[in-house]
Amino acid sequence: MTSSGSRGLRSGGTVADLVASARELQPGAVARLISLVETDSPVLREVAVALAPHAGRAQVVGITGSPGVGKSTTISALSHAIRQQGRTVGVLSVDPSSPFTGGALLGDRIRMLEHATDQGVFVRSLASRGRLGGLSAAVPQALRVLDASGYDVVLIETVGAGQAELEIASLADTTLVVLAPGAGDGVQAAKAGILEIADVLVVNKADREGSATVARDLSRTQSYHSTSDGSWVAPIVQIVATDGGGIDELLAAADGHFAWLASTGSLAGRRRRRATAEVEAIVIDRVRARFASLTSSAALDAVAENVACGAMDPYSAADRLFPI
Amino acid sequence: MTSSGSRGLRSGGTVADLVASARELQPGAVARLISLVETDSPVLREVAVALAPHAGRAQVVGITGSPGVGKSTTISALSHAIRQQGRTVGVLSVDPSSPFTGGALLGDRIRMLEHATDQGVFVRSLASRGRLGGLSAAVPQALRVLDASGYDVVLIETVGAGQAELEIASLADTTLVVLAPGAGDGVQAAKAGILEIADVLVVNKADREGSATVARDLSRTQSYHSTSDGSWVAPIVQIVATDGGGIDELLAAADGHFAWLASTGSLAGRRRRRATAEVEAIVIDRVRARFASLTSSAALDAVAENVACGAMDPYSAADRLFPI
Repeated sequence: MTSSGSRGLRSGGTVADLVASARELQPGAVARLISLVETDSPVLREVAVALAPHAGRAQVVGITGSPGVGKSTTISALSHAIRQQGRTVGVLSVDPSSPFTGGALLGDRIRMLEHATDQGVFVRSLASRGRLGGLSAAVPQALRVLDASGYDVVLIETVGAGQAELEIASLADTTLVVLAPGAGDGVQAAKAGILEIADVLVVNKADREGSATVARDLSRTQSYHSTSDGSWVAPIVQIVATDGGGIDELLAAADGHFAWLASTGSLAGRRRRRATAEVEAIVIDRVRARFASLTSSAALDAVAENVACGAMDPYSAADRLFPI
Repeated sequence: MTSSGSRGLRSGGTVADLVASARELQPGAVARLISLVETDSPVLREVAVALAPHAGRAQVVGITGSPGVGKSTTISALSHAIRQQGRTVGVLSVDPSSPFTGGALLGDRIRMLEHATDQGVFVRSLASRGRLGGLSAAVPQALRVLDASGYDVVLIETVGAGQAELEIASLADTTLVVLAPGAGDGVQAAKAGILEIADVLVVNKADREGSATVARDLSRTQSYHSTSDGSWVAPIVQIVATDGGGIDELLAAADGHFAWLASTGSLAGRRRRRATAEVEAIVIDRVRARFASLTSSAALDAVAENVACGAMDPYSAADRLFPI
């Protein structure tokens, strides 16, 4: 194919070929597509159009929690349990705290190598790559690639870093919040508000001292909590991710929440929320790109100079540069 | 005054009165102004216009580093040293990792109570308050309040959380990166890239084992490093913030960098960079506000539904909803 639309594809083959291969869960094709949506490729739009009809089928599970609670181990165990049931799984790991070290989390991924030869499991880490402010549109678009490729379940992991948690929750059908005894301020921070985004509460390291206290504290808080969808009360599941203890129950709880969403009609609302978050991320990326392209422009320089010297307030400057 | 422009001012008095009081460093007035810019008050524009002519005079110092390296103690010691010289100081503490616990950092601030009765020191914590993605425009605008109020030096602290560091660096004249021996992955993470934003490297807890190693490792890296402004090589200053050891040297290093910026003409560039970051944050806040106001709209619902069911790709949806 020689159309200009295939610029950015490093070797031969069209976007349609790539999507077809991804839909056979060929890991190389899936990885290529994620790279294309991650890097603002010239074929981005073509990829988006090709993916759209296939999206919206995966069960999307977000997993969040403070550093050290065992998210990666939990994901590895969950992936294993999902595969045992004959379902396929894609894993997206997002590290919002590291704009510099793009590959930093890959070490964590090594423990998932037991799945390395299984085409029914795909794992990818995304770093924020130095963009200012929040996750970029790359995250929902990478999720979209995994969804459209046809993985039955997509797990998105993020480090418990506030805003990123909220963004992951806005993309997921079901959000698991993982806690562990002795993991610093995890439980306290969780109590302060993270319960609001939890559809399932997970107490990992349930064989350790203090886990009963964590679970009891959670259940006290839980009774005062209900989700915006109404009558769902987040169950508390105790696990020992390192040996797989409780993982089947956790998967059942996540599946139970998904079934509840579908049966109550709430799933459509969550999917619209995800679509809205996707579109908003794209618009914000465009604003950032516009500013980046302005950086060396005389127009911006003149306005910035006026703001810097006090001749213009920054809100008037925003009106001038970017009337919306 | 009865003009509609003063809506949002809880008690009597105009925005002009408030700015006049803030410029006498009356802490209540400064705090009120920050609250007004933080909460999207109806008088926000009026406040911005009133502040503009007074902004751009403060020396703005950003302070970042991993949790546990002693940023708060360093800021307290720096504030003390600045006051000893007869200069006034405003401190802004930003916690990007906690959208839920708005007042979480106030405990840390207690150690600054030695300054509580000194009108020459003002301290304020800002949380991100649940906004999705990055620091809001509230951060640069709160900085602007402190600047325009007339504090000689403004210190902005942020937890080392990647993106927030970059944003603080874009607002500051001088960025201090604080490290400490034994503070987890601090030094390693720092090596991975944070040196790029450091104008002064600070090794805190210099009385502890390992601090010489940290300093030596830094100096090795440092020799390969220069800033975008050219010939500045970030000095390495060892301190013991808890007893004030090295703090005078640290302040001298920060002042030295500021003088270098001024003498080389680089200060104007940094100030334009700050103005640009301010305006960009305002535009992005507006985009978010627009999406928030769309959330309950039929227009958004229809588009989101089309994206969710695969009838429209999200880029086309962005074109439709928000053509820019």
